[in-house]
Amino acid sequence: MARAAIWADIAATLSGEIGQGFYPKGSKIPTEAELAARFGVNRHTVRHALAELAAKGLVVSRRGAGVFVASRPTDYAIGRRVRFNENVTAFGQTPSRELTRLETRPAAAHEAAALGLAALAAVHVVEGVSLADGQPLAMFRSVFPAARFPALLQALGAVPSITAALAAAGVTDYVRTSTRVTAKLAKPVQALRLRVPEGAPILRTEAINADAAGVPVEYGVTWFAGDRVTLTMAG
Amino acid sequence: MARAAIWADIAATLSGEIGQGFYPKGSKIPTEAELAARFGVNRHTVRHALAELAAKGLVVSRRGAGVFVASRPTDYAIGRRVRFNENVTAFGQTPSRELTRLETRPAAAHEAAALGLAALAAVHVVEGVSLADGQPLAMFRSVFPAARFPALLQALGAVPSITAALAAAGVTDYVRTSTRVTAKLAKPVQALRLRVPEGAPILRTEAINADAAGVPVEYGVTWFAGDRVTLTMAG
Repeated sequence: MARAAIWADIAATLSGEIGQGFYPKGSKIPTEAELAARFGVNRHTVRHALAELAAKGLVVSRRGAGVFVASRPTDYAIGRRVRFNENVTAFGQTPSRELTRLETRPAAAHEAAALGLAALAAVHVVEGVSLADGQPLAMFRSVFPAARFPALLQALGAVPSITAALAAAGVTDYVRTSTRVTAKLAKPVQALRLRVPEGAPILRTEAINADAAGVPVEYGVTWFAGDRVTLTMAG
Repeated sequence: MARAAIWADIAATLSGEIGQGFYPKGSKIPTEAELAARFGVNRHTVRHALAELAAKGLVVSRRGAGVFVASRPTDYAIGRRVRFNENVTAFGQTPSRELTRLETRPAAAHEAAALGLAALAAVHVVEGVSLADGQPLAMFRSVFPAARFPALLQALGAVPSITAALAAAGVTDYVRTSTRVTAKLAKPVQALRLRVPEGAPILRTEAINADAAGVPVEYGVTWFAGDRVTLTMAG
């Protein structure tokens, strides 16, 4: 095997074990000597693997004390029935959110196009940060047709999820009709909100949700902390 | 509408028009004055939108001559029947590839796990760069069980696609069983191969393909130039 692959392989194994909760957040992982013995490699190779985990923000080294788990990488399922709270709960984490904006304004051209609205039609806008176990997972901005949902803005501020707010507005079920994913670098505000360095990798998704009749009810853009979140999809 | 959104909206509109081939590669786009008139904004806002397109590598400004289309953003569909060549052809571009490695070696632990092989089982490895209209779209590394496909390495080097090589090895159909997507920053070798700056955003996908019986035949990792490619999926 090419030697270059070994440290990456060890990093992937340890990252998987942290993700599965084998080493919980805050716990100390085995020493370099123990890991070298376990994987049958020298300590230089172990250090290379640990540096990779540190660069991803998964572990932090405390001088003289050892290496500790700083955060868990999160898997986030993408599909027709994406629900943030269910996703995070299924992963054994506690979801929460902080809203940073609630307003009604004219739609931007791409928002109107995504929702099938006339140019400059009014939309409700909700912006915020989604957290898992208190750690920022993503920033989001969702827009909704205001004419169809006159009371939605108030509901978005009052209930704990978009799913619940749409249900209060009469949309008891919705499915995702399309998702677009691209990679970006964190801008200053994004870095601040996601608690990542400026220029850190960001996964940007753009999605349209539609009601049972296929009519778009939500156009949403989400910026995930890219090194901390893996989007997963069946097929 | 918040003023901050206008330039981004104009950039998104122009990016979409470049993507649809309305302004072909190499063509001159309208002047700042013409764009300002079209969108009903001042030239400062137009310049902000053009700077965004330039940062994405979509346009390039030539002093005294105007702003020209440098490349098209590419949509790349993810799903159960992903085929690189069909994807690129459907988008009106010409696919090609350059192989950088062909070898048989022991599987890394995560490769063996993905393919359901014993530790250190032999795998064929193919690495290379996928291009659309001569522009690098992605780097890829795929591994295949060597015991099942003794002649595959030779086929991978001889025929123009992985699909064709697997067909020659008796796998006439396969589907993607899972995809994982994350964001990374381009490392030096990736930057060189993808012709992007070091530290540019990269979309990394990890996928398993299985034959009609559900047995894994390929484990592949792909690194897409993140600002140049949007992964799209239905649902």
